[in-house]
Amino acid sequence: MDWLDEIKWDANGLLPVIAQERGSKDVLMFAFMNRDALAKTVELGEAVYWSRSRQRLWHKGEESGHIQKVHELRLDCDNDVLLMTVTQLGQPEADASIACHTGRHSCFFQRLEAGRWQAVEPVLKDPEHIYK
Amino acid sequence: MDWLDEIKWDANGLLPVIAQERGSKDVLMFAFMNRDALAKTVELGEAVYWSRSRQRLWHKGEESGHIQKVHELRLDCDNDVLLMTVTQLGQPEADASIACHTGRHSCFFQRLEAGRWQAVEPVLKDPEHIYK
Repeated sequence: MDWLDEIKWDANGLLPVIAQERGSKDVLMFAFMNRDALAKTVELGEAVYWSRSRQRLWHKGEESGHIQKVHELRLDCDNDVLLMTVTQLGQPEADASIACHTGRHSCFFQRLEAGRWQAVEPVLKDPEHIYK
Repeated sequence: MDWLDEIKWDANGLLPVIAQERGSKDVLMFAFMNRDALAKTVELGEAVYWSRSRQRLWHKGEESGHIQKVHELRLDCDNDVLLMTVTQLGQPEADASIACHTGRHSCFFQRLEAGRWQAVEPVLKDPEHIYK
């Protein structure tokens, strides 16, 4: 597909992807996709990443239930970074959605304060109860 | 400095960085920092990236005037991606701030529509007038 060919995949065939929540506009996470992952993401309308640690496609939420519904894809000026607008599903009873494997809303929960990284967002659900 | 040692720099000594605008919460750009760039960013309170193409520190705005004032730094759960809250300076007369070298507000201006990447954000200033 032409639109996939326009992307400048890196030396490992990967594309950095930023997932931003619709509505709150919070940046939830950052991960990578390869060509198959991006094609699958568009096909399903749900985020499918490439797991570098497991070296396989990773349909976000496949274990946790924390699926990301995809609304919009945007490519940057260099055609080598993707910004994705998502709705983070799977935890409707929590105060906020949960994207992070630590049970927090966003993966970006460590803030630099006076020369130290401080965790500043609460754990909304114990990871032991997310990954049963 | 301890907080720099806690970061998991990649094989090239780099850290992916997402710049998000304070207020609008728009994701403006994505770039990399090395250890020196991040230390300098914190020292100046302004974004200093590592330019991979030029292989040198890149004080964003040094040519264009489009300085990024840095408000907050957040590290992700794996200690290998940085989210930075910024105010994009340098173009107070425009309808929106300009972060992209194409003269657009954000680098993420190409939206996937019906299988094509479409430029959906206006050029606010001709790049020829940005880089004199």
